[in-house]
Amino acid sequence: MPDIPVPDPSPELLQRAAGVRRAAMALGRCDDASRRRAVEAMADALGESAGEIEAANRLDLETAVAEGLAGSLVARLRLDGAKLAGAIAGVRQVAALPDPVGRRQLHTELDEGLVLERLSVPLGVLGVIFEARPDAVMQIASLAIRSGNGALLKGGREASRSCAAILTALRRGLQASGVVDPACLELLTGREEGRALLRLEGLVDLIIPRGSNALVRFIQDNTRIPVLGHADGICHLYVDAAADPQQALRLAIDAKTQYPAACNAIETLLVHQEIAARFLPEAVAALTEAGVELRGDPAACRLGVGRAATEDDWSTEYSDLILSVKVVSDLEAALEHIARYGSRHTDAIATGDAAAAERFLASVDSAGVYWNCSTRFADGYRYGFGAEVGISTGTLPPRGPVGLEGLVTYRYVLRGEGHIAADYADGKRRFRHRPLPL
Amino acid sequence: MPDIPVPDPSPELLQRAAGVRRAAMALGRCDDASRRRAVEAMADALGESAGEIEAANRLDLETAVAEGLAGSLVARLRLDGAKLAGAIAGVRQVAALPDPVGRRQLHTELDEGLVLERLSVPLGVLGVIFEARPDAVMQIASLAIRSGNGALLKGGREASRSCAAILTALRRGLQASGVVDPACLELLTGREEGRALLRLEGLVDLIIPRGSNALVRFIQDNTRIPVLGHADGICHLYVDAAADPQQALRLAIDAKTQYPAACNAIETLLVHQEIAARFLPEAVAALTEAGVELRGDPAACRLGVGRAATEDDWSTEYSDLILSVKVVSDLEAALEHIARYGSRHTDAIATGDAAAAERFLASVDSAGVYWNCSTRFADGYRYGFGAEVGISTGTLPPRGPVGLEGLVTYRYVLRGEGHIAADYADGKRRFRHRPLPL
Repeated sequence: MPDIPVPDPSPELLQRAAGVRRAAMALGRCDDASRRRAVEAMADALGESAGEIEAANRLDLETAVAEGLAGSLVARLRLDGAKLAGAIAGVRQVAALPDPVGRRQLHTELDEGLVLERLSVPLGVLGVIFEARPDAVMQIASLAIRSGNGALLKGGREASRSCAAILTALRRGLQASGVVDPACLELLTGREEGRALLRLEGLVDLIIPRGSNALVRFIQDNTRIPVLGHADGICHLYVDAAADPQQALRLAIDAKTQYPAACNAIETLLVHQEIAARFLPEAVAALTEAGVELRGDPAACRLGVGRAATEDDWSTEYSDLILSVKVVSDLEAALEHIARYGSRHTDAIATGDAAAAERFLASVDSAGVYWNCSTRFADGYRYGFGAEVGISTGTLPPRGPVGLEGLVTYRYVLRGEGHIAADYADGKRRFRHRPLPL
Repeated sequence: MPDIPVPDPSPELLQRAAGVRRAAMALGRCDDASRRRAVEAMADALGESAGEIEAANRLDLETAVAEGLAGSLVARLRLDGAKLAGAIAGVRQVAALPDPVGRRQLHTELDEGLVLERLSVPLGVLGVIFEARPDAVMQIASLAIRSGNGALLKGGREASRSCAAILTALRRGLQASGVVDPACLELLTGREEGRALLRLEGLVDLIIPRGSNALVRFIQDNTRIPVLGHADGICHLYVDAAADPQQALRLAIDAKTQYPAACNAIETLLVHQEIAARFLPEAVAALTEAGVELRGDPAACRLGVGRAATEDDWSTEYSDLILSVKVVSDLEAALEHIARYGSRHTDAIATGDAAAAERFLASVDSAGVYWNCSTRFADGYRYGFGAEVGISTGTLPPRGPVGLEGLVTYRYVLRGEGHIAADYADGKRRFRHRPLPL
């Protein structure tokens, strides 16, 4: 993928993107109730168009099967009655989420009659790039409208008819709402347009990729627009000397097997040498029983792991029932391993030693640092955000699971009565900086 | 500048950067008092080394004059007793700032015994690139240490001896503090190293440029590391039909002339056609009297502006006593002009019409939107942040003037008692999502 050139946007694409931006600016001024109503109207329209959407999806599925698409991709592409109903219910849930827009984050009287506010505002326009899953189109489009943003959506070729039918319904819903311009949502088609989307700096404020690690990495490497997402999820569970072996094993099995394809599943188990002989033989048996293939360093292999790990194993996201296992000399060695091979997603320690736990929590520079719980909790819904826009492994905020607040930014609003800066430079007036209630 | 290649980092640079990162991780675990003490020790050491610093600066100045450096650059380079004393006082002020680290931003009981916190933590390592001004080294280094970050600092060649003397003093101060490793601060020398800094992804978390718009733009175009800053500051004052002409003129004069080189000075004055005949002739006289050269559209020229503006004028940051002037048909035309030519920095409306003002504040997508006050208030100190790390014109936060909070990110800390995700998927347990006190 990295060798495919990213073309300049065509005049037609620039024009369409500018149209979304204009419509989004108007949407950004809509009040909470209007945006909520618009999302509900989108759900209504999806329900009314269920027949067309399912028919379009069946055509996509036929083509996919005829072209020999992998079974897992065909499964993701499928949008039958139950899955569509679930997605529509999801859109209604988004409508019910609390408004992320217009929150006052700061309120200061700079001086008499000169008052500063910091207010959350929509980002503007989202660029969303999907592989396969047409249900994600409904989810992201509803999150965008709920938070006052327009969106340019680019689905995979294999889902083109499904996406077109969904977009037609969503736009009909916006039209019917009477409050939000359907021009806020645009579907891009064709590879060229999808790649050119990466070059729409100034027209698109945030790119959200939904797909494979390779897709995300390609996008990160080929755009100057901020990207919300993560390429790798290499998560660790470190079993400390003072761990409860039974509890640690339960955590390892959950974190590896509950959904191995998830980015928050663990890829590497680190085991303190003092507990290794007590912990590993039983853990190897239980994990193997759960269907997990283990790859260990020499010390782990001596304690029952059947296959030797290579250097590559420590930096591989298996996304499968495979787990690398390493025996470490102490907590510091575990921290060093995580700093070297981790992807700053989510890492956990199992221990009964509070001091060791706090050292771990303060030293691992990942979006999530956990003590005695499964890394699988790293998720916007589980965190209580009501929605998840993505999980970010970057350093700067937003970091970790991102809810609707990831789709807003802020603006400083300053209201005065003719105040000028020279009066403060001259000493005629002085700033008060008095905090006001939020 | 854009044609100069950005070299790969040398093994030696990678090693030094990794050393800063290691030291910064330890610094990140220091408590508030230790970091405060370290910054005070930096100020003490600067005071003790004042003689060496001033001597080094004199050598830089001699070279600069001999090489024919522009007078304005020589003035910025100069670090005499008074300027140095002011900079040291600034370092002490940074020590006294409230701690941005360890703030609890979110606190939720996900379930019994499973508690989520979101805590502010240092970013890690800052990459700072300066032109000329050696005093900025002291400011940024103290902000970095105060917020728990390491820093790789690259000064301009013309300030090389001054920067080296300052860094020696700062590191001696850290050594003397006994709490922070002097390895947290590293000075890079030479163009190659400065450019290679842009390629230290994974070792440097944020680039802070301090210099010309051209420097900032070069850096933004040549790094994948996030950049805190802005290239252009094209700010507008829109004088609405319902403005008080006297007040609007006062705002225009302050916003243009109080410090014309500042990024928050206005470059364009937009005037509603209904007030133009009453407002402009007097404004032209007063601005001209204040030394401002005016460039107008045809309507503005008919009302006294002496020189015609070209298309380029609307997108030029003069950084000088020059102002472009345009008569617009109405508020919507002003909004369109700002959307097209502005740089999303700070834009103001002068009006007595509250509805027009609120429309402006809700529609201009800039970091700062002002009503009846000068754009010159867009500044971290004036906003009451106690410090300014930079002003950002990007869409995503941090946006606008950024204080110490721009040098921290956050981490999710989850503490459990053996909790696993499968129990929630199975319905054995349910999330509570109970907010706890911050």
